[in-house]
Amino acid sequence: MDIATILGVISAFGLVWIAIFMGGGIQLFINIPALMIVVGGTLGATMINYPLRDVFGVFKVVKKALFARNTSVAELIKRFMAFAQKSRKEGILALEADIKEVNDEFLKKGVQLAIDGLEPQEISDILETEVEFVRSRHQLGAEIFSTMGTFSPALGMIGTLIGLVQMLQTMDDPSRIGPAMAIALLTTFYGTLLANLLFLPVAGKLKTRSKQEVLVKQMILEGVISIQSGDNHRVVEQKLKAFIAPKARMTADTQPAKA
Amino acid sequence: MDIATILGVISAFGLVWIAIFMGGGIQLFINIPALMIVVGGTLGATMINYPLRDVFGVFKVVKKALFARNTSVAELIKRFMAFAQKSRKEGILALEADIKEVNDEFLKKGVQLAIDGLEPQEISDILETEVEFVRSRHQLGAEIFSTMGTFSPALGMIGTLIGLVQMLQTMDDPSRIGPAMAIALLTTFYGTLLANLLFLPVAGKLKTRSKQEVLVKQMILEGVISIQSGDNHRVVEQKLKAFIAPKARMTADTQPAKA
Amino acid sequence: MDIATILGVISAFGLVWIAIFMGGGIQLFINIPALMIVVGGTLGATMINYPLRDVFGVFKVVKKALFARNTSVAELIKRFMAFAQKSRKEGILALEADIKEVNDEFLKKGVQLAIDGLEPQEISDILETEVEFVRSRHQLGAEIFSTMGTFSPALGMIGTLIGLVQMLQTMDDPSRIGPAMAIALLTTFYGTLLANLLFLPVAGKLKTRSKQEVLVKQMILEGVISIQSGDNHRVVEQKLKAFIAPKARMTADTQPAKA
Amino acid sequence: MDIATILGVISAFGLVWIAIFMGGGIQLFINIPALMIVVGGTLGATMINYPLRDVFGVFKVVKKALFARNTSVAELIKRFMAFAQKSRKEGILALEADIKEVNDEFLKKGVQLAIDGLEPQEISDILETEVEFVRSRHQLGAEIFSTMGTFSPALGMIGTLIGLVQMLQTMDDPSRIGPAMAIALLTTFYGTLLANLLFLPVAGKLKTRSKQEVLVKQMILEGVISIQSGDNHRVVEQKLKAFIAPKARMTADTQPAKA
Amino acid sequence: MDIATILGVISAFGLVWIAIFMGGGIQLFINIPALMIVVGGTLGATMINYPLRDVFGVFKVVKKALFARNTSVAELIKRFMAFAQKSRKEGILALEADIKEVNDEFLKKGVQLAIDGLEPQEISDILETEVEFVRSRHQLGAEIFSTMGTFSPALGMIGTLIGLVQMLQTMDDPSRIGPAMAIALLTTFYGTLLANLLFLPVAGKLKTRSKQEVLVKQMILEGVISIQSGDNHRVVEQKLKAFIAPKARMTADTQPAKA
Repeated sequence: MDIATILGVISAFGLVWIAIFMGGGIQLFINIPALMIVVGGTLGATMINYPLRDVFGVFKVVKKALFARNTSVAELIKRFMAFAQKSRKEGILALEADIKEVNDEFLKKGVQLAIDGLEPQEISDILETEVEFVRSRHQLGAEIFSTMGTFSPALGMIGTLIGLVQMLQTMDDPSRIGPAMAIALLTTFYGTLLANLLFLPVAGKLKTRSKQEVLVKQMILEGVISIQSGDNHRVVEQKLKAFIAPKARMTADTQPAKA
Repeated sequence: MDIATILGVISAFGLVWIAIFMGGGIQLFINIPALMIVVGGTLGATMINYPLRDVFGVFKVVKKALFARNTSVAELIKRFMAFAQKSRKEGILALEADIKEVNDEFLKKGVQLAIDGLEPQEISDILETEVEFVRSRHQLGAEIFSTMGTFSPALGMIGTLIGLVQMLQTMDDPSRIGPAMAIALLTTFYGTLLANLLFLPVAGKLKTRSKQEVLVKQMILEGVISIQSGDNHRVVEQKLKAFIAPKARMTADTQPAKA
Repeated sequence: MDIATILGVISAFGLVWIAIFMGGGIQLFINIPALMIVVGGTLGATMINYPLRDVFGVFKVVKKALFARNTSVAELIKRFMAFAQKSRKEGILALEADIKEVNDEFLKKGVQLAIDGLEPQEISDILETEVEFVRSRHQLGAEIFSTMGTFSPALGMIGTLIGLVQMLQTMDDPSRIGPAMAIALLTTFYGTLLANLLFLPVAGKLKTRSKQEVLVKQMILEGVISIQSGDNHRVVEQKLKAFIAPKARMTADTQPAKA
Repeated sequence: MDIATILGVISAFGLVWIAIFMGGGIQLFINIPALMIVVGGTLGATMINYPLRDVFGVFKVVKKALFARNTSVAELIKRFMAFAQKSRKEGILALEADIKEVNDEFLKKGVQLAIDGLEPQEISDILETEVEFVRSRHQLGAEIFSTMGTFSPALGMIGTLIGLVQMLQTMDDPSRIGPAMAIALLTTFYGTLLANLLFLPVAGKLKTRSKQEVLVKQMILEGVISIQSGDNHRVVEQKLKAFIAPKARMTADTQPAKA
Repeated sequence: MDIATILGVISAFGLVWIAIFMGGGIQLFINIPALMIVVGGTLGATMINYPLRDVFGVFKVVKKALFARNTSVAELIKRFMAFAQKSRKEGILALEADIKEVNDEFLKKGVQLAIDGLEPQEISDILETEVEFVRSRHQLGAEIFSTMGTFSPALGMIGTLIGLVQMLQTMDDPSRIGPAMAIALLTTFYGTLLANLLFLPVAGKLKTRSKQEVLVKQMILEGVISIQSGDNHRVVEQKLKAFIAPKARMTADTQPAKA
């Protein structure tokens, strides 16, 4: 889980927690029926909206987005430079041993295709199709979370309206108005909290992560094609560095890793 | 009716139902005039906005979208592979018998056009026009539901304003303020409920379904053209698998169905 | 006036009317100054926004959109098939007599251009320019109504704020608070009602009508070009049917009308 | 100042004025600190958002848009027809005398470039660049006003929150609650009023005016090129009329003005 | 720090400050827990949404955007004219001495590339890539600030809901309702204030600044290419002036600076 997300969750939920405790305690803010309306209703509306497989698939996408180790771009460039050197010295078939230790499935597949001797255009087509499907899966994930971020405040409002109608119908004892209204407001509280501290930021995170992952995959694609065409390791480096910001380029070590 | 929709409807409406019962009973939330303003007013505004035929046609589109059996993509590929084998062995005319048992009207028509010996470009034009009309019909359906999802909370607010004005004008007896306000809030409740648990999720469902259906139709189009040009069944398989996600491809059985 | 609009207006306004009557009578909801602020203010803001000619021109566009008889597409195809037969038998000049009885100015002009012997490209340019101007006039109309739909709730809120400020300043007699607040809320009621049951649905109607009218005009354009190039009436039919949905095609009678 | 704007301002502000007077008098609605928060805060936020020069430049753009005499398109066509006749009879240099009396700087410049003998492509490039800068200046103006229309209700809400907090802290004397709340609401009133009767309609006006002005400038550009290439005055007329709606063409007098 | 921002901050925050003081004093508006919820929660949600590096990087972007000295376009043109003269007289290598005193890193790099004798296409590629990265960094900054401007009012609402729930549960002493509600409203006040006087205007400023900076960088790119191809200083001037508005061109002094 990346550090920004951890810090974000701590500072956002932590501060809400502190504010709640300072004002008298958490028990005022726990109301299971209210929570059920907001969470269940939001999930329900989302399940009407999207196929079941996509709704549950989104949690896997999120887990991956939050916990996946960020591929180091500098590492990647070094690795491809090493591949290039070895490939030029010992032939592209020599890479077969190296890719066995590679964790990244996409990188493994790309180099394997080059070893198998496919045409550059074919490799490019196969890998680009895969990138496209990754991108559309992430986009769907972000879209589902945005949708939940739209439904959850609305469900909160529905819950509050239910509470208000019930309270107003039985307004005999004025001393009970306050607590009843407090409970009615809880669903709005839950809906707003979930939307703004969970659903919408996670939707944003998925979009951000998707861009990074697609960029890395495009670098791998470029690298594989470059190695296959027998480029010198300096040329490979130059081609891959075109994908990263000019400033980041200087800090990236230019020595090829031992392959 | 697909399972996601059923689960969604149960969890969303069920939880609202439970919340209402726990708070004293459903009778507080039934108010025919309030329901008439929201439902009738929303329908009315929608009928001013769209032609009558489109408004009523949308219900057929929704029924189809919710209850239509999902075409299995793996089945479709197998079927086309079988068609390809038979067509290469016995000639394309031999498919005439097979398509009689096909349920999918679009598939039937496509293969029939190939049997009739039309040019690939002509077949493609005819089928693509049909796909385009399907797509635009779905899009119109999603648009009409989105519009209803915009009008229904507004109508709810109009109903609440009517109730508030009536209540405020006759505020002599304070004990009647509560119940009168509860009734005034009911239209807002109905409007928000309908928009967020019915109109907007169904609009989303129509968009999702449309993408699936158009994809299947495009696969059929590709398959028909491929068979007509006498492709080997492995080539047909490869061409059709390009439409589905790389992961799903592995699970798709590559044995042609018995044709 | 098309039937959807009539039904829409009846069901929407009718239900509001009933709700008002059931709650005590219409006189609570009539307040001339409140109506003046909302209607006058909305018109005023719209007149600052758009040139005077466009604001008043929009009412003519609306009248046309609501009351214009829908051109029957099937009729149109039959008419063009009859034109095609006659033109091939007696020459295109023979159509001069037929178009005298045609009501549609656009159709009349198109055929006249063909009779006058202009080049297909010229006819196409002239008619397309006209279609483009029709489309942009409709679009402007829809835009003006959308703008009024945005301003009228805002003006309603302004009126309510005026009422609230006046009421709050003179809160000596508690018994007068209720009625004063009721009156203050009336402007919001008017603003919301006008926006959601008049301005926004009519804006939608204009967009829908515009699509229909432009489609019909494009069919006429295609038909005129087809007749001029001496196409057989079956070819004309086929070309025009490409504009309509596959299902609608079957129901369209394929016998040419008596010309 | 065009008549639509005058009518709009009168009807919008006039009706608000009347509503205020009927309810007891204007003094309830004048509150200098409230006005300062809304106007000053909106200007402040806008000045953080845009460069100082652009914020002040926008007032010049507005003045021009509201007070500029609308160039008559019919006049323009007649003038160009006269130019064409003279140019063909006496040579293009003869226009030097005519353009001295022309008020429109853009027209003057365009004809001067033609007299100076620049290539059509060069003239076109120079004039198009100028049109582009005019368009982007108008667009910036509309954008700044839209921004002010977004900030001013927000500032109104901020002012109201300040007033509410102050009122709620010192709620000892119930008789003072009403007037204090009235004052608190005034900032929201000002913010909504400014946004909906000033900022947003003027933003719309700037967009509308920009389209008109750009259209006229494009007609001038077309006319200059046409004259330079020695077109007959009827050809010039035809080319320029292509810019205006078919209906407006008939009313445009086709006699060249005396040049 | 540019003068518009200073004036904007003074007028916006100053007026709010004055309004607060006139109503009784600042102490009513200081509430550390409320501030913590809004600021901490907004930062937290933003950190979940964006990578940590981007969130903190944005402050550097903002500092640069607010405090960076605006490059004078007129100065830039004069400098390039001087470069052009010297380069034509003494050869492009003679510029090596001049660029040592240049502060603008981008300009320095561009001229250095020309001196090093790279092909125009290569120079253009390298510099354009850099411009693209600058543009995307600014865009990300504006996006992050817009996101904060969306989250901060939502967090304000969450804080207010917490306060309301706590207040309503313990409504025994009516005299404490007012102050408790005042404190509850403070989070909404903070959230709205931060969004509308800080986050959103700064997001706008970043967009505006980005356009300016990118324009200047594109002028430098054009200038470097122009000098390398040996253009006369008048040609360089003309090429660079094409980037600025026609009116601004006249005021730009056309004498080359002493190089």
